Amino acid sequence: MKIALAQLNYHIGNFDSNTAKIIDAIQKARSNGADLVVFAELCVCGYPSRDFLEFEEFIGLCEISAQKIAAECTDIACIIGLPTPNHRAEGKALNNSAYFIENGKVKAIANKALLPNYDIFDEYRYFEPATEFSCIDFKGHKIALTICEDLWNTIENPLYITRPMDILIQQKPDVMINIAASPFAYNHDEERISILRDNASRYKLPLLYVNNIGAQTELIFDGGSLVFDNTGKLIDEMPYFEECVAYYDLDDKSTVSFQHRSTLRTEKQSDIAQIHRAIILGIRDYFYKSGFKQAILGLSGGIDSAVVCALAAEALGAENVMAVLLPSRFSSDHSIKDAEDLVKNLGCMHETIAIKNITEAFETTLKPQFENLPFNIAEENIQSRSRAVVLMAMCNKFGYILLNTSNKSEAAVGYGTLYGDMCGGISVIGDVYKTQVFELANYINREREIIPINSIVKPPSAELRPNQKDTDSLPEYDILDKIIAGYVEGRCSSAEIIKMGYDEKIVRKVIRLINLAEHKRYQTPPILRVSPKAFGMGRRMPIVGKYLS
Amino acid sequence: MKIALAQLNYHIGNFDSNTAKIIDAIQKARSNGADLVVFAELCVCGYPSRDFLEFEEFIGLCEISAQKIAAECTDIACIIGLPTPNHRAEGKALNNSAYFIENGKVKAIANKALLPNYDIFDEYRYFEPATEFSCIDFKGHKIALTICEDLWNTIENPLYITRPMDILIQQKPDVMINIAASPFAYNHDEERISILRDNASRYKLPLLYVNNIGAQTELIFDGGSLVFDNTGKLIDEMPYFEECVAYYDLDDKSTVSFQHRSTLRTEKQSDIAQIHRAIILGIRDYFYKSGFKQAILGLSGGIDSAVVCALAAEALGAENVMAVLLPSRFSSDHSIKDAEDLVKNLGCMHETIAIKNITEAFETTLKPQFENLPFNIAEENIQSRSRAVVLMAMCNKFGYILLNTSNKSEAAVGYGTLYGDMCGGISVIGDVYKTQVFELANYINREREIIPINSIVKPPSAELRPNQKDTDSLPEYDILDKIIAGYVEGRCSSAEIIKMGYDEKIVRKVIRLINLAEHKRYQTPPILRVSPKAFGMGRRMPIVGKYLS
Repeated sequence: MKIALAQLNYHIGNFDSNTAKIIDAIQKARSNGADLVVFAELCVCGYPSRDFLEFEEFIGLCEISAQKIAAECTDIACIIGLPTPNHRAEGKALNNSAYFIENGKVKAIANKALLPNYDIFDEYRYFEPATEFSCIDFKGHKIALTICEDLWNTIENPLYITRPMDILIQQKPDVMINIAASPFAYNHDEERISILRDNASRYKLPLLYVNNIGAQTELIFDGGSLVFDNTGKLIDEMPYFEECVAYYDLDDKSTVSFQHRSTLRTEKQSDIAQIHRAIILGIRDYFYKSGFKQAILGLSGGIDSAVVCALAAEALGAENVMAVLLPSRFSSDHSIKDAEDLVKNLGCMHETIAIKNITEAFETTLKPQFENLPFNIAEENIQSRSRAVVLMAMCNKFGYILLNTSNKSEAAVGYGTLYGDMCGGISVIGDVYKTQVFELANYINREREIIPINSIVKPPSAELRPNQKDTDSLPEYDILDKIIAGYVEGRCSSAEIIKMGYDEKIVRKVIRLINLAEHKRYQTPPILRVSPKAFGMGRRMPIVGKYLS
Repeated sequence: MKIALAQLNYHIGNFDSNTAKIIDAIQKARSNGADLVVFAELCVCGYPSRDFLEFEEFIGLCEISAQKIAAECTDIACIIGLPTPNHRAEGKALNNSAYFIENGKVKAIANKALLPNYDIFDEYRYFEPATEFSCIDFKGHKIALTICEDLWNTIENPLYITRPMDILIQQKPDVMINIAASPFAYNHDEERISILRDNASRYKLPLLYVNNIGAQTELIFDGGSLVFDNTGKLIDEMPYFEECVAYYDLDDKSTVSFQHRSTLRTEKQSDIAQIHRAIILGIRDYFYKSGFKQAILGLSGGIDSAVVCALAAEALGAENVMAVLLPSRFSSDHSIKDAEDLVKNLGCMHETIAIKNITEAFETTLKPQFENLPFNIAEENIQSRSRAVVLMAMCNKFGYILLNTSNKSEAAVGYGTLYGDMCGGISVIGDVYKTQVFELANYINREREIIPINSIVKPPSAELRPNQKDTDSLPEYDILDKIIAGYVEGRCSSAEIIKMGYDEKIVRKVIRLINLAEHKRYQTPPILRVSPKAFGMGRRMPIVGKYLS
């Protein structure tokens, strides 16, 4: 039996485009002699469709698309993922389903049993878990078909009380197929391979696994679909961050082999190289899927905006990126020069708009209220907010989308101005720690100097008051980032982090800053997620609460 | 047996204050001769504690608090709610538990089985559902103790496959106790009474129900704890929006009666009167629990900011409200006069800060880029954003919190400026339709004219260009609000709403505007929730997706 795995980029709610893409792959797979073509989880509507799933119209359109796809399945079978009504009287309204389609008809339906509901996942909000499981007979094979999380209830950390394959295995399948929507995090590919390998070797069955690729606002699906033989040996690893259809042979003894050349990676990509590709895809899909072409951002001469500008130029083309220098009276000469050098290196559009007259107008206007009170955070924020108003005015006049340039370290400790530099349609590096931003800058410069070296080596500064440096109010970033990671990703208490060897005063200060910034982060743009714990939908903290640490 | 129901206002994560409050109620109940005092769901840590629940330290502190409370339980028993570790090897890390404490010890634990995971609820994110149920013997009675949603799996709409009381009833209890965290929506009190009454009459048992009161950022818990006899007759309804401890007698035949006078409401409050009280509590708790005292807002002379100002003055005291008039060249004379009249009526602090010089500075600065392009949304938004920068500068200088004054109709169709009038720490009327804002204004004026009549009767306008009126670009609000409600609350398709009798062109336009505003709403402040479907955590729509209607 020849099986095609189709790893494609879907658009949430875009039934016409998703259906056309699926039908095109079916037709190509048929002409390439495939018996079965397998698509990813919820491919018909896109993942995650979130509260679209509460609209009956939406669910109806999923079924209409499935019927269109079924009509194409002559001389070839396919597996697609879609939400379907739960026909039992009890439980949630929907199932997260896979259709097995043969001869133009839905021959079997497999429903997902294990519904992830942690971090960025909300599947139990919509779906009723499956309680019945049946293998599918096809061309002399017996397929155990499961959906994503169904294979993730590990022996070490059993998050669920059931394990669907333990039931399916009793029906003596000879192959496992799993369709998935497993989002990228820089350390996720190895975990994914390890968990799926464990399944193949535990059940002694070959396993074909198809993942989504493509970005859906903050979530980036990285593809990397996998094929294992029945000993758990990795037979193939499909490309990351790109669409791909690959073909495999499954013989009568259930030996699986790749039909053409393998796409198996010979070399593991570094975390930073993966993050780089993920962000490029994230920016590109954000603009493409929302129907925009051109980005704007403020260039400070610092490393964060420089990195975002370079990433945007790569994702959208330099000709579609407008970089705006917005010097104030506190901007240093080198900042302006560094920003200009970057613009030259990239060849993007640029403008210089000095904000001096604007900030002076604010300060003059507020003089009666502020009287002779000293310059403080109020005036600092006026600068940052004036820049945001200018950038948003450019967006409104010319149709750009503003890119947010805050990094994860800043977003964590609230080192940013709400309605100022925290503005934007999408946060590009909001899940990248400052220490990783340096790595990313060096990676971007791997072949030639794109980001001016001076932007990388000079001490970071917000330049909102004379001679300001980030380290005036924050610890060094290599320490700061580890404390943040301990609290945000590790959910450690301050006592536990102090025990790791960090200074008590610094730990308490950093955690206090993180807690105080919850109200700011609530109002920031969606953040391209590249780590296992990003700010945004995956981390839901109270705003008005008493924090412990 | 004498039972005290304690309906108290907790603060999320504030273990010291919550524990002290619970212990104080236990001591008072004991001196009033109670045998048992019952507190609400998750009272020990506050509801919803959200991702605080992922911190081991937090769960540990819940148990420490419970032990302190237990130590006070001599000569009196109590029921408290708290998260506890799930001791089974499989499943989520926690249970949503109730401790029955007697003689200083935890005598029994009931875990919640039905975990709401819709709208604003995320309980399946943290908790493993209970599968075992036991009644509790106490002073000759057998108590069936359940937690909130456990009684909400209705016959008509069975959202869950089990019904805990169906199992407990087999053990022949003679009374039901349910502890809850059931947030306010203007139509929720009647639904709550009806569902609980059904339980009392179905199981033929008296039912004592304790709800939380108090606001937790956007969620407002309204109390209104209830007592039914074994025929489903409502014996008592505790007060709404305030703390209360009430006492009941349960005799040997399980007849329940109130010990002192009943708090049963004689008159049903109107929706608007309830919304009014809810918002007052919402503002007050937001400030009190976050440690702030003073609010600031921009007064336009229009009805929305006038209503918010009046609500804030009632919640915080007029002396703690700073109203700022921010006239531009498009502000009409009557707007300034109406705003001044309001300030006079309320007696709040006020400033007038004209933004003309600021907007001119922006326009002059942007002249090289904007050249001779016509005045459009870019310049309109500069006005709104300039006001926001001024208000935020006042916050930064003087420690105010900015109140957002957008109403639900505007928030729905995106009739507001991101980083402009959509700013604020909390949105006061973001879940109140414009048509309800008029009702609220009249309600506020029920005894004397607080909100100037002219602010109520004049045609609504954003005053961002000459002679602008809301109806230039939007349908009349009585039509607009019904279309929004159909789409947002009813999840109806455009076809279904058109079928209700609305003009097709208007329906399509309104729904398109709602969809286009998702990215704006993502970045707005938390909204005080007063309806069954508010924007914010209870409505999770894709940003980059293809919308249907």
